[in-house]
Amino acid sequence: MSTVYDVTDWSVSGTSETVHTDIGLYINSILDDIRANQSTQSDNPGAVIYIPPGDYILRTRVLIDLSYITIKGSGHGFFSSSIRYNAGDTSGWAEIWPGSSRILVDNTDGQAEAFLVYRSQAPRISSVQFRDFCLDGVSFGSDENSYTNGKVGLRFQSDTDACLIEGMGFVYLEDGIIAHNVDAMRVHNNFITECGGCLHMTGSGQATLVTANLMGAGYNKHTIFAEGHKGLLVEGNNIFPRGADSVYFLDCDQSAITGNRLHAFYPGMVVLEGSGRGNLVTANHFLREDEPFDPLKPYDNGRDDLFGLIHVAGEEHFIQGNYLRFDASPVATPTPTLILVRSGSGHTVSSNHVSCSTAGFNAVLLDASVNNVRVLLTGHSGNFTSYAPGSEYAFLGLPPLGTHRDL
Amino acid sequence: MSTVYDVTDWSVSGTSETVHTDIGLYINSILDDIRANQSTQSDNPGAVIYIPPGDYILRTRVLIDLSYITIKGSGHGFFSSSIRYNAGDTSGWAEIWPGSSRILVDNTDGQAEAFLVYRSQAPRISSVQFRDFCLDGVSFGSDENSYTNGKVGLRFQSDTDACLIEGMGFVYLEDGIIAHNVDAMRVHNNFITECGGCLHMTGSGQATLVTANLMGAGYNKHTIFAEGHKGLLVEGNNIFPRGADSVYFLDCDQSAITGNRLHAFYPGMVVLEGSGRGNLVTANHFLREDEPFDPLKPYDNGRDDLFGLIHVAGEEHFIQGNYLRFDASPVATPTPTLILVRSGSGHTVSSNHVSCSTAGFNAVLLDASVNNVRVLLTGHSGNFTSYAPGSEYAFLGLPPLGTHRDL
Amino acid sequence: MSTVYDVTDWSVSGTSETVHTDIGLYINSILDDIRANQSTQSDNPGAVIYIPPGDYILRTRVLIDLSYITIKGSGHGFFSSSIRYNAGDTSGWAEIWPGSSRILVDNTDGQAEAFLVYRSQAPRISSVQFRDFCLDGVSFGSDENSYTNGKVGLRFQSDTDACLIEGMGFVYLEDGIIAHNVDAMRVHNNFITECGGCLHMTGSGQATLVTANLMGAGYNKHTIFAEGHKGLLVEGNNIFPRGADSVYFLDCDQSAITGNRLHAFYPGMVVLEGSGRGNLVTANHFLREDEPFDPLKPYDNGRDDLFGLIHVAGEEHFIQGNYLRFDASPVATPTPTLILVRSGSGHTVSSNHVSCSTAGFNAVLLDASVNNVRVLLTGHSGNFTSYAPGSEYAFLGLPPLGTHRDL
Repeated sequence: MSTVYDVTDWSVSGTSETVHTDIGLYINSILDDIRANQSTQSDNPGAVIYIPPGDYILRTRVLIDLSYITIKGSGHGFFSSSIRYNAGDTSGWAEIWPGSSRILVDNTDGQAEAFLVYRSQAPRISSVQFRDFCLDGVSFGSDENSYTNGKVGLRFQSDTDACLIEGMGFVYLEDGIIAHNVDAMRVHNNFITECGGCLHMTGSGQATLVTANLMGAGYNKHTIFAEGHKGLLVEGNNIFPRGADSVYFLDCDQSAITGNRLHAFYPGMVVLEGSGRGNLVTANHFLREDEPFDPLKPYDNGRDDLFGLIHVAGEEHFIQGNYLRFDASPVATPTPTLILVRSGSGHTVSSNHVSCSTAGFNAVLLDASVNNVRVLLTGHSGNFTSYAPGSEYAFLGLPPLGTHRDL
Repeated sequence: MSTVYDVTDWSVSGTSETVHTDIGLYINSILDDIRANQSTQSDNPGAVIYIPPGDYILRTRVLIDLSYITIKGSGHGFFSSSIRYNAGDTSGWAEIWPGSSRILVDNTDGQAEAFLVYRSQAPRISSVQFRDFCLDGVSFGSDENSYTNGKVGLRFQSDTDACLIEGMGFVYLEDGIIAHNVDAMRVHNNFITECGGCLHMTGSGQATLVTANLMGAGYNKHTIFAEGHKGLLVEGNNIFPRGADSVYFLDCDQSAITGNRLHAFYPGMVVLEGSGRGNLVTANHFLREDEPFDPLKPYDNGRDDLFGLIHVAGEEHFIQGNYLRFDASPVATPTPTLILVRSGSGHTVSSNHVSCSTAGFNAVLLDASVNNVRVLLTGHSGNFTSYAPGSEYAFLGLPPLGTHRDL
Repeated sequence: MSTVYDVTDWSVSGTSETVHTDIGLYINSILDDIRANQSTQSDNPGAVIYIPPGDYILRTRVLIDLSYITIKGSGHGFFSSSIRYNAGDTSGWAEIWPGSSRILVDNTDGQAEAFLVYRSQAPRISSVQFRDFCLDGVSFGSDENSYTNGKVGLRFQSDTDACLIEGMGFVYLEDGIIAHNVDAMRVHNNFITECGGCLHMTGSGQATLVTANLMGAGYNKHTIFAEGHKGLLVEGNNIFPRGADSVYFLDCDQSAITGNRLHAFYPGMVVLEGSGRGNLVTANHFLREDEPFDPLKPYDNGRDDLFGLIHVAGEEHFIQGNYLRFDASPVATPTPTLILVRSGSGHTVSSNHVSCSTAGFNAVLLDASVNNVRVLLTGHSGNFTSYAPGSEYAFLGLPPLGTHRDL
């Protein structure tokens, strides 16, 4: 019994659907075959299901309740549907859709997801892999700039361990990936853009790695959202606009955002929210600009520029060695804030380079309730503001020009 | 003559073994075929040997003495055997073993390794690749928490250049990878956990890249060990407990440990030992906690908490911009040390955030013999200790709360 | 109609060439087949073209004018032709050439490139992928250390979006990759060495990601060159000698060079040239040594050691938290410069560790025209030099030994 399947070689009896009219039906049938062949707890190495380049409509959700299943194509197949839908006449274009191993997510089964990873039986599912194919939501409906169509590319619903998402493309889905209670997941080298939300990790999780991705969400959801995570590392990603924010941590502990390039059109790029403790934000490049694309200028994320490019709540976060550049028309204030320390204690903000196109700005602003905070070499006293009592923080600003000494 | 082999399509005459009862025998036979077909020095492009998902026992060590050989499966197949062996009744579980393209390492040939890369003939072997399969040591014997069974997944014994280990899973081996005298190796995006040691690079080496891996060793060996390396870059890895340490450099020069997330249950996480010079440790997140898992609470790595989360010997190392959090019951001292500069000269420790759950601690401790050391903005004078003469170091501590000035 | 091609299964009528004597002819013929099968704008998912391990001469340039084409082999196949050509008698060697899926670039069609990605029709080409094969220029002619043969591995000539170069090997080409006007390209996990230039990104581009590569160019070209790029992230690469420089940015904005290990034999390793603004250089390890290899000792890059390991022009760059080690015989000066801020305003140089083998050196040197520059904790006043007026910069040097205080 082979453990290598090609969806285009598979046949399903009793249906008039082909693999191109409902690939979900075909993959579920292949999974039935795997279950039948691997029926004992000690003999179930899983299988690889290959999707050659082609257009495949998915009408039936795929349910993966087995470990060690790999769904694999031959390319992420990204194409900017946003540019195309806003382009006007495309009758002369060579192509008008994403490609490669492309699944058109078009559920008619009442489900939101193209793929659901879930089972109730112990143990949690291990090492499911999605690699090198394209999940395309095709359209956001009557308003192609709405980022809403209710479609989800991948959803991990029950606890999983050691799953892998690599080399994938996600486009025009309301949510690319929703992953609940994942441990030790790797999200690596994907292209996840023009989705409402790109990667939402809900519930809790630990020791996940999000590296070397190109990502950019829509204005109404997060590009990367993590809830209740510990030991999450977000590194080396190139994060485009237009997500409501670039990275949003809710109640995350002891995690790190390092070495990313972040670009945004709205206030709020890295948000550390809730009661999280001990996160590191370092070596990132932040650029905040205005939306340059006419069709998307009407939209925003609802925040103003007092919110900060970096917004800090929680305990003992460390914001160090980042580049922050604000080059925009600030929203609802003449003096935008680059780093807002909104609440909590024990934070350190040190050695960040700040730059702003407006005449005045707050390099760092401490809100009234913070305590035991240190702000070091991040702007100078002329662009530092504190509403907290002077006894609750230490501030060492950049030296004025003309200073020449050893410390 | 094809250069693409599938182990399940190969037959070996004169044996009753199948590919599932001794995959080592089958791969060696395929390598014989490659050698026969590529017999001159100017015509040997190598080959790819594919292992479909399945369970394959390896009883005979594979000897790779050719360049350009790729051994490839369809998934890392990790499963937590540690959780399973400590779980009690698993009769209701859906699966109880690792999976995907899984090799059960069970040598009966008197050898320790599943795969040995070695030849004596010049030149050194180039560009051997191990990709996307699982090496499973299956059991640690009568004590499943011992991390000892004498099994080695991959061993590179003679000099090699430009080899690649990517997408692999290693579990329940005494040593996942032992690589001797490698140059320009890439160890990328692997899952190497629940092994005694994960990646041990012995002898010497240069310009190797260890990136985007999930790793965690046992309490008696190193997660990443490098000896005599120059220009090694360890970046963007998520390193779990329970290795004796996370990264151990012995006599390594001009190497870097950057942007990793490190988590440990014992003293000593990054250790720069021996006579190495010029290493950079930056942008990493360190978390030291107590072992939470009852079955593994009896074990430790033999060190006490004076050892430091970062332990520095050698010359001119630079420890900059890291997050260090100690949240544990300290071993053999009420005041744990976060950064111990044990010996050598010319080190700089700057702009690290330190945090400790104990009432007292040493953010940085300088031992008596060090000289020409600078400690900058890493804790304050209240948690700094030096046994070295005052003339041998400079210390600039964090400003006290209430400080407000430009420098 | 299959979308999965194997070059060794394809036949071309009307030619005596085989796939091994002109793979370019065969791939072009496959592309013709794809075009014929995917002739409407709404049905063109592309295809994958597989190159099994083997030696394939390319005499005809491949023209890719379609989106979603993947050219894929089974290994990067790097072999040090430089060592081999300089080794003397290799008659006893096991192999003398690169391998795996190896294309010998030997155009007889008057073209320089092995692969050209180009079309004039809208939209720009999306998501072409080159993966896991070797492009070998074979020889630099009568002087095997000249790095010149006019050969180019990959050229992207018209605008492209979301292309991917991963797992490739490039060797003995005058230029590995020349990419013009690329957006959102990923260059990931490749082995690009012993080429004249490795990766030259010309024209303009945005949001590209260059990660986890091993690279090293020749003395007459750049290892990584980027022109007019915005939001480029160069991270986690291990960059060898002997490029004229490691990373050269010309007129690049808001880009980042983070977490790389850089090694060079000539002055000038990271160069920020032209009118670029807002680049971040952080967490990198720089090592400058002398050329140790006799055959290449006659060569240099024409610069002297006043040029700086880091050379800064433009506006508001941030050089932070790097390790710089100079251990060489300086060229044309007894006092080499580690960081030269040559021109522009608003730069910040902070918290870099500097180390030099010469008695005197300039940790940081400010040229006469710079203004509004800050140099913080990077060397001390004894190894700082400014030709700019004192009112145009601030300098805070490392504290002398014997300093013990909180700031």
